[in-house]
Amino acid sequence: MRLSRYFLPVLKETPSEAQIVSHRYMLRAGMIKQSAAGIYSWLPLGFKVLKKIEGIVHEEQMRAGHIPVLMPTMQSADLWRESGRYDAYGEEMLRITDRHERDLLFTPTAEELITDIFRSHVSSYKDLPLTMYQIQWKFRDEIRPRFGVMRGREFYMKDGYNFDLTKEDALHAYNRHLVSYLRTYERMGLQAIPMRADSGPIGGDDTHEFLVLADTGESEVFYDSAVTDIRLGQRNIDYDDHDQCRAVMEEFTALYARTDETHDATLFDQIPAERQRSARGIEVGQIFYFGTKYSEPMGATVQGPDGKSIPVHMGSHGIGVSRLVGAIIEASHDDKGIIWPEGVTPFHCGIVNLKQGDEEADAACDKIYAALTAVGLDPLYDDRKERAGGKFATMDLIGLPWRITVGPRGLKNGVVELTSRRTGESVELPPEDAVKRIAEIYAEHASGRGF
Amino acid sequence: MRLSRYFLPVLKETPSEAQIVSHRYMLRAGMIKQSAAGIYSWLPLGFKVLKKIEGIVHEEQMRAGHIPVLMPTMQSADLWRESGRYDAYGEEMLRITDRHERDLLFTPTAEELITDIFRSHVSSYKDLPLTMYQIQWKFRDEIRPRFGVMRGREFYMKDGYNFDLTKEDALHAYNRHLVSYLRTYERMGLQAIPMRADSGPIGGDDTHEFLVLADTGESEVFYDSAVTDIRLGQRNIDYDDHDQCRAVMEEFTALYARTDETHDATLFDQIPAERQRSARGIEVGQIFYFGTKYSEPMGATVQGPDGKSIPVHMGSHGIGVSRLVGAIIEASHDDKGIIWPEGVTPFHCGIVNLKQGDEEADAACDKIYAALTAVGLDPLYDDRKERAGGKFATMDLIGLPWRITVGPRGLKNGVVELTSRRTGESVELPPEDAVKRIAEIYAEHASGRGF
Repeated sequence: MRLSRYFLPVLKETPSEAQIVSHRYMLRAGMIKQSAAGIYSWLPLGFKVLKKIEGIVHEEQMRAGHIPVLMPTMQSADLWRESGRYDAYGEEMLRITDRHERDLLFTPTAEELITDIFRSHVSSYKDLPLTMYQIQWKFRDEIRPRFGVMRGREFYMKDGYNFDLTKEDALHAYNRHLVSYLRTYERMGLQAIPMRADSGPIGGDDTHEFLVLADTGESEVFYDSAVTDIRLGQRNIDYDDHDQCRAVMEEFTALYARTDETHDATLFDQIPAERQRSARGIEVGQIFYFGTKYSEPMGATVQGPDGKSIPVHMGSHGIGVSRLVGAIIEASHDDKGIIWPEGVTPFHCGIVNLKQGDEEADAACDKIYAALTAVGLDPLYDDRKERAGGKFATMDLIGLPWRITVGPRGLKNGVVELTSRRTGESVELPPEDAVKRIAEIYAEHASGRGF
Repeated sequence: MRLSRYFLPVLKETPSEAQIVSHRYMLRAGMIKQSAAGIYSWLPLGFKVLKKIEGIVHEEQMRAGHIPVLMPTMQSADLWRESGRYDAYGEEMLRITDRHERDLLFTPTAEELITDIFRSHVSSYKDLPLTMYQIQWKFRDEIRPRFGVMRGREFYMKDGYNFDLTKEDALHAYNRHLVSYLRTYERMGLQAIPMRADSGPIGGDDTHEFLVLADTGESEVFYDSAVTDIRLGQRNIDYDDHDQCRAVMEEFTALYARTDETHDATLFDQIPAERQRSARGIEVGQIFYFGTKYSEPMGATVQGPDGKSIPVHMGSHGIGVSRLVGAIIEASHDDKGIIWPEGVTPFHCGIVNLKQGDEEADAACDKIYAALTAVGLDPLYDDRKERAGGKFATMDLIGLPWRITVGPRGLKNGVVELTSRRTGESVELPPEDAVKRIAEIYAEHASGRGF
């Protein structure tokens, strides 16, 4: 994309309403615009990041064997009355009456609707196990929306639901989700620690939240510092293998790590003192096993091998897709702006022309742009007639991890400058080598369609 | 995907509530499930087709230089009061009150919100031309929703908005949209004819609807039969070239083609009698030029080259993404089921194993499956222990354009059967040749990430 043809409304001033760094930078980098309290439009740069994150979530869910569906945002209140949650949910549920005076609601979660789909179409244990998920807009009418997309009212979320014949199978689904979530976050350059949590209105016995450590987190967390040394990395995991998935779950949850809701001071004190940590965290996902809580009242049963009717064991599992945009910025920025991890960056590389209008500089930039595009990369070329300082400030603010700087002086020596946003380090090298280097960096971050 | 691990709830019986063929087949093929009047869940097969169509729309919009954004489904009523449409819109607008008694609405279209984004960030003619679009869920509270996704209440739509300095530039944007829409529909295997139409509540002078001819269409249309002979085909169009885009627009709109709203019997009678046609059509898109209708009342102005403040010229342009799923089925089916065009088929190819459990047949199917996957294709392998007749009926119903049938008898002669869903013709050939043939067929339908 050439910046002269793009819509990137960066702000020089820090908007006064933004209290945390991700909200400030998302507004300043022209990623979002508030349209009502807790409700945002995603401008081109923000949309690209949102779609990158969505793409990674889809890829990792499908890799785990989960099947994508899409449920509507507007749901009938009837199903929620059947489960008993319509009255229980409280004022965070946005309730609506249509022109025929029927009660609708904007889905905050979809246990009821997916259970209805299941009971309408599945009747035999032979069709299990089954896990379906969606990535869809949700609404929670927060009394005090704040922190930009981190605690908005309309938000984008992946919610998945497993249906299993036995508790053991459902716990495997729980472990499988844990593994797939770890892989998902690591691909985004994030460390998200599974912590024992409270189940809240979803219900159920077993639940873990995934938390990104950040000073601006809304949750207080307590953990053994050794937990931050564990990585999933490039392990080859067979998602059908119960033992493999359980082993990962046990490895990641053996050490103490809890939110304040489930914190146990006695257990915490057994950690060696130098490893005791209390900090703040941002919740970016949660997994639940809740057994037959919905299947029993809603009649979601299958015929077992012996012909008897059995209510299925279920769990639900969420990833905050729009919230992750903010969480990644909280975890990766400096005082100049955002620093995108390669896996989610909106453009792979920036190109800064130090002397727009100079024949050689323009030609070199065009050539680099074409070469990057030819290898499947998506550069942002700042082709405006602006001062170099302004161009650098914009690139630093929007946080592309790599920048190629092209100027007449370097070109005389046959070189351009390749700069890492993260370290600030620059190297001079011939243009074709810069392109090659960038292509190598992204070879391991291949992702789907770009926007 | 192996069918044994998929969720494809096909129905044997035709649901009584479905009046038109696309609705019947979408229910029978397990593509959708109604959750409330005019509100549907997209089951796995339906979701895949919806995403294929969405992908083509995105690709063609970006190819035309239009920039994707995403606006929220919930909008504040304030902006709609500013334009005067809040009261004018009538009961089809779903109106909502939040917990703080503020008026919200579920967006039926987004002229106001995009104009607000524009006026907040753009102030100079140098930032024009600019066209932004989104693909987002909309809601219209139809008094009598019907025909499945063809006239639902919650629907998925691409809506785009152009901002230009002059009327001439805005008319170029209009023509550019027309060209990009023609290309979009052709990639989906559809002929959609631009017809002069009425502007309705969007407003404006110039507007064309795109109609797919089908007996079940809700619109009555009148046209010169010669209009159906025109194709865009593989022309190489420069979307920045005003003359090229205008020439395509003139070519496609020179002949008489109108909906009943703008039908003119006198003009129609001037067509040679043997070319006069009246028929039914399904509207799958519409483009509008409406000048300063929104920019003037909402103060969306830019500073022109002479320093004077000028209200921008605008248009808006829509494609019914979820409706297209139904429209394509209306245009392409037979009495056994759907016949997907290659561009939007949910799976590229079906594999039917005539004797599941037979060692050689199973091994051959696994090998074909792996070979198709290795070349980037997405097959559906019916690996269930079912009769061949049942497997064929399911494949015919869900409409994959190509099927490879594998059985012990053929394998003895080193061949499998490759069958076209459209023609019913089969050829016998070695498995590796069948894979090669399928790969060749899809080489021209390369599309993004599959679901």
